[in-house]
Amino acid sequence: MNIRLYPTLEQAEKDALQNAPVVVIDVLRASSTIVAAIESGAERIIPIADVETASRLVRPLERDRKLLAGERKCCPVPGFDLCNSPGEFTPDRVRGKTIVFTTTNGTRAIAAAAKASRTIICALTNVRAVSSALAGESDVVVLCCGTEGNIAAEDLLCGGLLLESLGGLVAPDSLGDAARIARIMADTFGDHAEAFVRSSDHGRRLIALGFEKDVVFCSRVGVSSSVPVVRGGAIVA
Amino acid sequence: MNIRLYPTLEQAEKDALQNAPVVVIDVLRASSTIVAAIESGAERIIPIADVETASRLVRPLERDRKLLAGERKCCPVPGFDLCNSPGEFTPDRVRGKTIVFTTTNGTRAIAAAAKASRTIICALTNVRAVSSALAGESDVVVLCCGTEGNIAAEDLLCGGLLLESLGGLVAPDSLGDAARIARIMADTFGDHAEAFVRSSDHGRRLIALGFEKDVVFCSRVGVSSSVPVVRGGAIVA
Repeated sequence: MNIRLYPTLEQAEKDALQNAPVVVIDVLRASSTIVAAIESGAERIIPIADVETASRLVRPLERDRKLLAGERKCCPVPGFDLCNSPGEFTPDRVRGKTIVFTTTNGTRAIAAAAKASRTIICALTNVRAVSSALAGESDVVVLCCGTEGNIAAEDLLCGGLLLESLGGLVAPDSLGDAARIARIMADTFGDHAEAFVRSSDHGRRLIALGFEKDVVFCSRVGVSSSVPVVRGGAIVA
Repeated sequence: MNIRLYPTLEQAEKDALQNAPVVVIDVLRASSTIVAAIESGAERIIPIADVETASRLVRPLERDRKLLAGERKCCPVPGFDLCNSPGEFTPDRVRGKTIVFTTTNGTRAIAAAAKASRTIICALTNVRAVSSALAGESDVVVLCCGTEGNIAAEDLLCGGLLLESLGGLVAPDSLGDAARIARIMADTFGDHAEAFVRSSDHGRRLIALGFEKDVVFCSRVGVSSSVPVVRGGAIVA
């Protein structure tokens, strides 16, 4: 299996995101929240780039089966049902529901991968399950979203753990510098993911804003067997 | 000392490159070649973005005191005196001479830092000397050039070794994710720099093109005490 790993959405070449499976990693917090929602039985998640469009998609009378969720600058959006804290997406809140979801980086990355042969959502929580789902693929693109054009250490760690989990399936010569750096992150900090994520730029920002619980939630490696995929514009199990 | 490290030229914010000292790192090979040339007694190096302008700056009759040097796609430029192999820049070739120098990434980075308070050229070879030259600064920008918009592992390693060498002078809280990743590279591979550089994307490409000697030359950590700086558009000792 040949792997191309991009350390930020901005560094991904558009052509590379077409006709191959793309694994979208945004550990803090979009990917982790999507995995939690699917794990809790949400029927589908509709990723939307902007708050206005998202708001228009959910009419007041539909709120028993459709929820508005997302964040801007890490914080809740006024009028939304849920923020972007994965712990909020419990079965009693989301089971059987459609979630219209907008976040800063994650939904942009999913949109960028619109022409992929498959788009798979990967977080630390489901990294092992994603690895199993990739068996049999010959070329895989791993898209670490990063934060506003900058590398996010927690996304690289997750990408590295995915490579580690794929193990001997990966053609070593296919790995570029970014993939090898991700692998070094995983080798060095894979067993101390929470401490590593806490000390990352985005982890520290979230903790300062009062979202420490989310950072802990998102740092648990391989606890979920959910593999959310994009199908017809929506994320499903 | 607050440190901002950018993993590629493209990720550097223009504002950040103004009014602060900027350390330009392009291990393979521009920075290493500049350090070798200054170490060998070159009077000054004029970085030029394109081959045509560089060629116009050196008239045939001036070739006893002015040399044309540089590369395109890692290879020699027809009609130039020197390529971008640091080992070529020996005292008997360059002592007392002006070198008009054009490379793919390195000269672009120097141009981007035109408004810095100081621009210092850093390679693995002179990383310790650069660290000493930075003592007393309060805010430093470390600009890892990368290769065509992508992270270059050897530049990150060099940035990490610079941080390691600065040691207690660095304010840990000032380090962002890219700087901390660079530091991890240095901690893990600082003692095996040659093997690390050989296995990098750019290292492998150079070896495949027959430049293995250059890769070995550029991988020697801290062997030079030269600190090339940019002054009035030229690089001097």
